[in-house]
Amino acid sequence: MDVSSIHYVIDTFFLLFAAVLILLMVPGFAMLEAGLVRSKNASAVLTGNVMLYAITSFVFLLWGYNLMFGGSGFFLNGVAVEGYSAYAYFLFQMAFVSKTVSIMSGGVSERIRIVPFMIFAVLMSGFIYPMVGNAIWGGGFLKEVHDLAGCTVIHSVGGWALLAGILVLGARRGRYGKEGQVRAIPASNIPLVTLGAMLLWIGWFGFNGGSAFTISSVEKADLVGLIIVNTNTAGLAGAISAAFIIYFQYKKLDITMILNGALGGLVAITASADVVGLWEPIIIGAIGGTLVVFAVPLFDKLKIDDPVGALSVHLVNGIWGTLAVALFADFSLLTQLKGIALTGLFTFPISYIAFVLIKKMIGLRSDEEHEYVGLDLEECGLEAYPEFAKSKV
Amino acid sequence: MDVSSIHYVIDTFFLLFAAVLILLMVPGFAMLEAGLVRSKNASAVLTGNVMLYAITSFVFLLWGYNLMFGGSGFFLNGVAVEGYSAYAYFLFQMAFVSKTVSIMSGGVSERIRIVPFMIFAVLMSGFIYPMVGNAIWGGGFLKEVHDLAGCTVIHSVGGWALLAGILVLGARRGRYGKEGQVRAIPASNIPLVTLGAMLLWIGWFGFNGGSAFTISSVEKADLVGLIIVNTNTAGLAGAISAAFIIYFQYKKLDITMILNGALGGLVAITASADVVGLWEPIIIGAIGGTLVVFAVPLFDKLKIDDPVGALSVHLVNGIWGTLAVALFADFSLLTQLKGIALTGLFTFPISYIAFVLIKKMIGLRSDEEHEYVGLDLEECGLEAYPEFAKSKV
Amino acid sequence: MDVSSIHYVIDTFFLLFAAVLILLMVPGFAMLEAGLVRSKNASAVLTGNVMLYAITSFVFLLWGYNLMFGGSGFFLNGVAVEGYSAYAYFLFQMAFVSKTVSIMSGGVSERIRIVPFMIFAVLMSGFIYPMVGNAIWGGGFLKEVHDLAGCTVIHSVGGWALLAGILVLGARRGRYGKEGQVRAIPASNIPLVTLGAMLLWIGWFGFNGGSAFTISSVEKADLVGLIIVNTNTAGLAGAISAAFIIYFQYKKLDITMILNGALGGLVAITASADVVGLWEPIIIGAIGGTLVVFAVPLFDKLKIDDPVGALSVHLVNGIWGTLAVALFADFSLLTQLKGIALTGLFTFPISYIAFVLIKKMIGLRSDEEHEYVGLDLEECGLEAYPEFAKSKV
Repeated sequence: MDVSSIHYVIDTFFLLFAAVLILLMVPGFAMLEAGLVRSKNASAVLTGNVMLYAITSFVFLLWGYNLMFGGSGFFLNGVAVEGYSAYAYFLFQMAFVSKTVSIMSGGVSERIRIVPFMIFAVLMSGFIYPMVGNAIWGGGFLKEVHDLAGCTVIHSVGGWALLAGILVLGARRGRYGKEGQVRAIPASNIPLVTLGAMLLWIGWFGFNGGSAFTISSVEKADLVGLIIVNTNTAGLAGAISAAFIIYFQYKKLDITMILNGALGGLVAITASADVVGLWEPIIIGAIGGTLVVFAVPLFDKLKIDDPVGALSVHLVNGIWGTLAVALFADFSLLTQLKGIALTGLFTFPISYIAFVLIKKMIGLRSDEEHEYVGLDLEECGLEAYPEFAKSKV
Repeated sequence: MDVSSIHYVIDTFFLLFAAVLILLMVPGFAMLEAGLVRSKNASAVLTGNVMLYAITSFVFLLWGYNLMFGGSGFFLNGVAVEGYSAYAYFLFQMAFVSKTVSIMSGGVSERIRIVPFMIFAVLMSGFIYPMVGNAIWGGGFLKEVHDLAGCTVIHSVGGWALLAGILVLGARRGRYGKEGQVRAIPASNIPLVTLGAMLLWIGWFGFNGGSAFTISSVEKADLVGLIIVNTNTAGLAGAISAAFIIYFQYKKLDITMILNGALGGLVAITASADVVGLWEPIIIGAIGGTLVVFAVPLFDKLKIDDPVGALSVHLVNGIWGTLAVALFADFSLLTQLKGIALTGLFTFPISYIAFVLIKKMIGLRSDEEHEYVGLDLEECGLEAYPEFAKSKV
Repeated sequence: MDVSSIHYVIDTFFLLFAAVLILLMVPGFAMLEAGLVRSKNASAVLTGNVMLYAITSFVFLLWGYNLMFGGSGFFLNGVAVEGYSAYAYFLFQMAFVSKTVSIMSGGVSERIRIVPFMIFAVLMSGFIYPMVGNAIWGGGFLKEVHDLAGCTVIHSVGGWALLAGILVLGARRGRYGKEGQVRAIPASNIPLVTLGAMLLWIGWFGFNGGSAFTISSVEKADLVGLIIVNTNTAGLAGAISAAFIIYFQYKKLDITMILNGALGGLVAITASADVVGLWEPIIIGAIGGTLVVFAVPLFDKLKIDDPVGALSVHLVNGIWGTLAVALFADFSLLTQLKGIALTGLFTFPISYIAFVLIKKMIGLRSDEEHEYVGLDLEECGLEAYPEFAKSKV
């Protein structure tokens, strides 16, 4: 066994390990979102999550990966991979792509129809995400932007597309009163929300840690360790900051806000976990959690109806995390801003136009009756919990 | 550290990693099945899943492993293991055995009693599975059959035994009307079904990937990467093909069928993931998902009552996947057919006789009243969700 | 790549792998406990689990780790780590600390308020646990005690503190009648209980296996394999022994008792998994499961109200497992007893006093009305399952 083989083997194993962790985020997002929506829409959300994983991964296998990393043709052809197995590297990259749409699926839930959303998922995984990914990670014209595991490439992209989707879709019926009141719609299943958020948290270690790509030297092993510790610290800080703020505001520890705070902290550290020390993630994550707590009511004030708080978690903190790189490490603020802005300017209009076109051509939104009864029956032909009597709609 | 030590260490670590992934399938099967049955039977299904893991693993530790791999006596004695830790290899093999019975437990659910089923679990893990495993994987007379991770050894064996169990047990009361109508019995908890299926999906990476046994060379690292990518691709294709078919049939995206389609695709690739390229799993998996969609109503037409679709997923696709090896790679169709046929001819009659004997001696099935009220109270003395009012039985 | 780098890289990777497994225990405990309590208290239990993970890990990062391993000041400063990444080692150790409080949170549930409990969590992670950990694992005056992964350091410490908490808090209202009758309060969600227990089981492989710290030699790889096999065996034996006893007592297979039996077996092997052979864990685990079955009613007879059986699982088996080291391997019984006794004599009084002080200063327990309605509304401002009608309180 020669030296290069040892590197090759260990780093392949490491990438597979990281990919598996990231794939835990598929049930993670599914459980989080199914728990946050009303039970009458839970099956539709779950079906969307499963199908978007299947479709985006499939598109990425067919041509998205190739487009993103400068290959030629289809499948893995022509993508240059060195130092570890091309299959493991593909799997790791493929594990990312569905996240850009998973991020969205909670935010458009309770009114979007599954089939048109899946058409958007094809566009995202086959064009929007590979283009942004190519610009920043594939050696393209934004390669100076430092974005370890995708504050911009994943979270902002998903966030901008979600914003477009929500604007085209409109709010859930009955969500906003005529005088601007916000009708609270409580989460239907808190244990699922908690489980989902914790699976995401653990999956994040693969997301960020794996983005070091190799672990097979002392320096790289330390780097991977540092990244994972920092990722965890920012999640802790996001949860704690969100908990403090809501406790002082309401004297209640609303766990959905605390978990969204943790996720906000995790998003916030995603660009910089490799270039900061041990204390910076406390600040970056705490600001991340704080932003979530304040952004959630702000979007409601703007009548931008996001049932799960995904814009606050992913878009707001995707931007914040990309900026934090320049504030806490030695990177150009201008370059980071350029990455943020160009990604938004690319993703938002394309997504908006795509949603408008899909809406015009095949429709995007459930009709009033089905929205009232719940999307599960119309979209999936079943209920999530058919036996449990509902005490209120 | 000499060269052979490096191999030894890395491959031991790799086997432990794979075993852990496979063990995620224990909660995976438990959640899938508990979600698919009615809530009045969910605790019995969960108890069966936990106990069958405990009992089959214990039997395998005591003598099953020894029987399968030509040891002498009990525990790990006399089983020759080279190149990695004998403990890690045992753990990896042990992680497989409970699957053969987990496969069955959903199919016989809602009417089988736990204790007699556990007696069958002893027979499966202590005799049937080790005998088939020995013939194909232990260097026995079917060692020419190519079956990477057990299309035949695991899925068909579990499937044949399940078929025997269902035939001896009979259908759930009220399932089939006098004129052959099938009364639909909806799944009680769709989030659990989704969680379970996704845990199985992720566990499959350990199942198939770990069946390369070693990762410690460039070739093997590539092979493991290829296997896991192919496994995932077949799952994607199974989900997508099932979704397409049911959407065109019913205009509904029934998530239980989509997830069973994914599982069908995953079973289908289990024999061949190491000997095909990147595009073949698309076909193998898509056929797998398609078979599930058509096999489920077919079994119902035959009044073979399988509450979770396990025969369609595991038996049908276990056979299909074993054949696919010969259709898509350079292996003898005759040999593969021989493996399929002899496994069925061995497993089905023994299982049938065993179920008949257990039925005669201690009874196999819950009585009418308990089946109506639900097995949970009689078998476990508790309800799965005692506080949630039931809107219908 | 020189030889020491190979060790460094592999062992860093291994510690990260083990840490990730342990972190699966965070959702594991959360699901187990949320399923075992009544649904009106499930959100409070979940919030406690999330917040205690955040707070204890944060305190451990700030100063607890430093205190435990003889560093100087804050963060990782001055803690000597050799042979693998200091970050990975920290993460692994940090993954342990929240367990000491997770163990408690089910036992004090359904009446403790979250904020005062979190204050105790700071004391536990910032003082009690680091002090005991330092004495036994940090080279302190109890370093002769053999306690692989924390029968005493984790499980007994959490157990003693829990006992103190329960004594200060008192029983749930209505739990014990005037003539000493015990009112049964059934678990609200059995699938969650099962999922949680299985995640704990799998997490335990990281807990115990990772406590070998290195895997990078043939001897160590074998040791890690042995530890994980033994850990699993004890869990199997605990489940089976508990199932046998309750089946012969009641003819019912109460899954909550079976799973607590498994957890009892897993605790019991935690001190000795590295120093016994393959058959000893059968006995150690079977005794562990048996102890749980008999301890649960015993605590009720003493009117020590532990809603989830945590004292029986963690305190009783933490003691038993520490003793088992001396009974089944060549270690001094006296030394083990000394470790058990001094840990109890240190942890219980401090915890008791702390709970009394917290009670006096800010209150510890929910008032009667909120306990009746459920803590979720008062503590979290939401319900765990707002849409599912409750059939009884």
